[in-house]
Amino acid sequence: MTVRVGVIGVGVMGADHARIFAREVRGAEIAAIYDADAKRAAAVASETGARDLAASPESLIADRNVDAVVIASPDSTHAPFALAALAARKPVLCEKPLAASSREALEVVAAESRLGKRLAQVGFMRRYDPPYVAMKAKWKTGALGRPLMFHCVHRNASAPAFFTADMAIANSAPHEFDVARYMLDCDLTEIAAFQPASASAGQLVKPVFLILRSAEGALVDVEVNVNAAYGYDVRGELVCERGTVALGAPAAIEVNLSHTRSTAYPEDWRPRFAEAYRLQDQAWLNAIERDSPDERAASAWDGYAAAIVAEAGLRALHEGRAVAVAMAEKPGLYQKR
Amino acid sequence: MTVRVGVIGVGVMGADHARIFAREVRGAEIAAIYDADAKRAAAVASETGARDLAASPESLIADRNVDAVVIASPDSTHAPFALAALAARKPVLCEKPLAASSREALEVVAAESRLGKRLAQVGFMRRYDPPYVAMKAKWKTGALGRPLMFHCVHRNASAPAFFTADMAIANSAPHEFDVARYMLDCDLTEIAAFQPASASAGQLVKPVFLILRSAEGALVDVEVNVNAAYGYDVRGELVCERGTVALGAPAAIEVNLSHTRSTAYPEDWRPRFAEAYRLQDQAWLNAIERDSPDERAASAWDGYAAAIVAEAGLRALHEGRAVAVAMAEKPGLYQKR
Amino acid sequence: MTVRVGVIGVGVMGADHARIFAREVRGAEIAAIYDADAKRAAAVASETGARDLAASPESLIADRNVDAVVIASPDSTHAPFALAALAARKPVLCEKPLAASSREALEVVAAESRLGKRLAQVGFMRRYDPPYVAMKAKWKTGALGRPLMFHCVHRNASAPAFFTADMAIANSAPHEFDVARYMLDCDLTEIAAFQPASASAGQLVKPVFLILRSAEGALVDVEVNVNAAYGYDVRGELVCERGTVALGAPAAIEVNLSHTRSTAYPEDWRPRFAEAYRLQDQAWLNAIERDSPDERAASAWDGYAAAIVAEAGLRALHEGRAVAVAMAEKPGLYQKR
Amino acid sequence: MTVRVGVIGVGVMGADHARIFAREVRGAEIAAIYDADAKRAAAVASETGARDLAASPESLIADRNVDAVVIASPDSTHAPFALAALAARKPVLCEKPLAASSREALEVVAAESRLGKRLAQVGFMRRYDPPYVAMKAKWKTGALGRPLMFHCVHRNASAPAFFTADMAIANSAPHEFDVARYMLDCDLTEIAAFQPASASAGQLVKPVFLILRSAEGALVDVEVNVNAAYGYDVRGELVCERGTVALGAPAAIEVNLSHTRSTAYPEDWRPRFAEAYRLQDQAWLNAIERDSPDERAASAWDGYAAAIVAEAGLRALHEGRAVAVAMAEKPGLYQKR
Repeated sequence: MTVRVGVIGVGVMGADHARIFAREVRGAEIAAIYDADAKRAAAVASETGARDLAASPESLIADRNVDAVVIASPDSTHAPFALAALAARKPVLCEKPLAASSREALEVVAAESRLGKRLAQVGFMRRYDPPYVAMKAKWKTGALGRPLMFHCVHRNASAPAFFTADMAIANSAPHEFDVARYMLDCDLTEIAAFQPASASAGQLVKPVFLILRSAEGALVDVEVNVNAAYGYDVRGELVCERGTVALGAPAAIEVNLSHTRSTAYPEDWRPRFAEAYRLQDQAWLNAIERDSPDERAASAWDGYAAAIVAEAGLRALHEGRAVAVAMAEKPGLYQKR
Repeated sequence: MTVRVGVIGVGVMGADHARIFAREVRGAEIAAIYDADAKRAAAVASETGARDLAASPESLIADRNVDAVVIASPDSTHAPFALAALAARKPVLCEKPLAASSREALEVVAAESRLGKRLAQVGFMRRYDPPYVAMKAKWKTGALGRPLMFHCVHRNASAPAFFTADMAIANSAPHEFDVARYMLDCDLTEIAAFQPASASAGQLVKPVFLILRSAEGALVDVEVNVNAAYGYDVRGELVCERGTVALGAPAAIEVNLSHTRSTAYPEDWRPRFAEAYRLQDQAWLNAIERDSPDERAASAWDGYAAAIVAEAGLRALHEGRAVAVAMAEKPGLYQKR
Repeated sequence: MTVRVGVIGVGVMGADHARIFAREVRGAEIAAIYDADAKRAAAVASETGARDLAASPESLIADRNVDAVVIASPDSTHAPFALAALAARKPVLCEKPLAASSREALEVVAAESRLGKRLAQVGFMRRYDPPYVAMKAKWKTGALGRPLMFHCVHRNASAPAFFTADMAIANSAPHEFDVARYMLDCDLTEIAAFQPASASAGQLVKPVFLILRSAEGALVDVEVNVNAAYGYDVRGELVCERGTVALGAPAAIEVNLSHTRSTAYPEDWRPRFAEAYRLQDQAWLNAIERDSPDERAASAWDGYAAAIVAEAGLRALHEGRAVAVAMAEKPGLYQKR
Repeated sequence: MTVRVGVIGVGVMGADHARIFAREVRGAEIAAIYDADAKRAAAVASETGARDLAASPESLIADRNVDAVVIASPDSTHAPFALAALAARKPVLCEKPLAASSREALEVVAAESRLGKRLAQVGFMRRYDPPYVAMKAKWKTGALGRPLMFHCVHRNASAPAFFTADMAIANSAPHEFDVARYMLDCDLTEIAAFQPASASAGQLVKPVFLILRSAEGALVDVEVNVNAAYGYDVRGELVCERGTVALGAPAAIEVNLSHTRSTAYPEDWRPRFAEAYRLQDQAWLNAIERDSPDERAASAWDGYAAAIVAEAGLRALHEGRAVAVAMAEKPGLYQKR
């Protein structure tokens, strides 16, 4: 079986997905591409052997030759396109965030719930990252005891000039919220936010330090540092009762030169998570083939959960206090079986 | 010149100091030892070639053959003995804490201030630990920019059954408070405390997670985990504007065996900080010899500062809110020249 | 385009290739499977959706529905099947070794040379391993200067009881010979062999330590240690004039438990080189699709080169002296363009 | 007890020893200093509080106020001064090499043997380096089984222009020969030497790669690379039957900056072995105090052994063949008790 994939939006992430589906996984072909920038659409279509350039997102979704839809257009369009794909009963892989707000994310959840079938997957690719997967597997062996704390670090080399601390919480931190929910197998119930006040960072957004509580009582702390300068770096350490497990530092090579022993950091997240994206996209295809969601996949509900935690985080930052996360009731569709 | 050292209290730390002065540094001899347990006193005296067993702490301090005093007796006795040594105008190396409370520590500060001479050093040995020293030297080069955050981890293999979360803040965390003040070269002004609520840890004290602000606006976070189970482990990472610097993992050997590559953790802090204790004790002797305090030394004021931060931390834990650190005014004696 | 792959031999490696072609790469399907053990053939066929079970290797090679052939049958059959595939003008991916002897490997080279087209690839998958690739890319930047030495370590957890030192050189070391030729971009011209004489290893094959010279004068040393006991471990460090580059230790997670900090070694080579196999197999398909060999691929000539170095290594071990590698003249087909 | 130490030769190493005895260890004072460069002698004497500037090495050795002698003068003078100190029955710490030739070293051995008392210690300080000591302790636990191979790397940032490959074997490698004998607890019986022939290193001495056999059948290989360029680096891995143990990479700090994670290499051996020198010098003092040689100390016999292995290594390099090490018979004085 070959899944005919349509891709809406071929900026950095959309083009990467198109390449993955065209070259690196089994069972897909690029059926159609849409991008507001027609030239970019044409370039990626040519590169990935796409059959068709769609005239609009809507026509791509409606296209009979499109079996499944990837949404990688601007954030504000994610939910409308996801809803349209669900209406067409087509599987959708939606880049994070699922929606511009938790309220809107809940609409996707509700629509899917009415369908009675999980068709949407949110692109929280870390759930497929071998180090995170191995970390979870390790504590699930029981050897370490129960989780008490999860220390997370999220560092970007630099953020665009328009980036704000709010955006760090709303756009960057959700990867951490989702991976914490995945890692701990439970929801996050409270969040507090801190920021250093050091002056000389100038116009740059300073780091945000978040502390969250899980429903089972673990603490999660997250450094979200979008101007870390030295490179892209993601870390995690799960502190359990009898030991800890941390993400490795997966360096291909080590160089001795100029009085240092060094390994390299990438400029952005793509080399770090290349394997995770490939595994995620393959798992999505496999799930479509067998008509049953992948068990590791981030669902629309998970997309909603990340959004509502981020909203509580924003309030926590603005109000300088811990804020409870008020989640809606989870529809039966998303209950574990 | 040979400094004739008297040691009050020869439990674990006092005996270690006595051995260091007797064997590993230049310019000292053990003149007298006192311990409430006379047998223990005799054993350590014999091992270290001490000339005399003192009948009481007071007589040790008064002894003309004792030039300088090490206080390693139970915590509650530190301040009274320190005051007595100051009254005798003898240099004193006081194991942490300097006093049982910040109020009492302030009495030592006041007494020393009246003397007009810094004679007391508090045993915050990390200030002499080569990795911490190298970390500070690194950011002081300016290459990394200004400090924004300092992540600290303090893990003991296990705590005695009577240990409480309060004791973790009052007894263990002060090492972190002092090293943060040393590292950042400024005071700590606010503290908040969090604890995981996970159940199955049973009777064990759960970790405490502290967040502090420095006078210059940096954030300091500290995991104080006295039942980490896997061994003694101290970590630190200073996050600056352009990069970070972290304590190395100073393993003598790496072993490949039984499908793992591993390095060993010690059971307690003594192997980790053996070099720091030796360097501290040598620096103390050198300072006595040249009659001028070592510039890296923790002063009585530093002992007071650690105590008052700990007290604020206790209130933060009990009241579930951030608590400001209300420090007294710093006497001129402790101003940097 | 979908390449219809036939797999001869579905033991450990053949079954792995079948799974990779069936599930993890783009552009293939399993058309036919042959194995002397019919049950095993049927099981792998079922698992990988193979259309057909071939009655014999010859019929598989002749099958019109088979576009390309993977040879993973016993070593002694590699060359005859490769020759048959070449005779049928079908692309072939032959597990190492290419042949049972350098003489036989040269027959494959000659046959391919007569065809005038490179259709055979030898499964030296390390050429696709990201750490080795990054190591080569690093020295090729010129920053390190020219290579002087290449230190290699090849450790298996354990070898079967029938394994001998000769087999370590003939079967295990060729991976190192090939990767050294790939890394240094030149041939190996001389080899010497050493063995420890320590007694208590009992019946186990002791390590062999090889020293080779490259045509450009670099030294290559290789520890081939098939009973290393602690796990599967492959290492490499390229020592250049101004610095060195070493393979990283790519651990997904790091665990703190029981007084150690550890990362895990796998039991065998498959987890270590899973990514290399996938990339190799994808590159082979891509090469078939564009009808032009992959530039990183190990050719039949490379298969011959590894074999003749191994034969010189055996003589070096038996005769206790350095032995020159007497390579045939390289046919024009394999000259770099 | 205070040992009054006289130091002959206060170039780099002699001055370092003088500082260690004056400041970092217990039980010594610098009684006299001699250096052919009177200004240098005066400067170090002033810095270390030496009582006296000796008029000649001979008068220093004869001085009644000198209890023990450190020899750190040019290599060719070591043996004559050591013999003079033995004649005066004074303990001597002689920097490596003990003598300019194995024949001359044997004269020291013979003289000491006639005295019937071990008074000479050779400055093979690695025997006191905590990582080497821990490595030996690890295999001695028995957990790893017996040693099969010992891989050693000795890299200097750069060598003086006059340095030759012969000097690399004669001057640098002896540290490795001694530490191999110490580590394996047995003699080295055979040595072979290899050199890369790569051209572009220009005038620089190329690395020498040595392979040795121990009396118990283990292989030892050593890269002696005096122009490694990137810094000073010493490595060792002991490969045993059931696992391996390697020297750690003892970095005080780790820096994240400019897209790399790095630790620093020192320019030369002194920071790497500072602790070893201090421990060696303290152990030497302690041995003098209790009038019995330190069990870890390198004896005159060990100095002879390193020299004769180096001489065999030179022949191996020049003649391009493995050369047996023809050791003299070991006098009873040096037999283990």
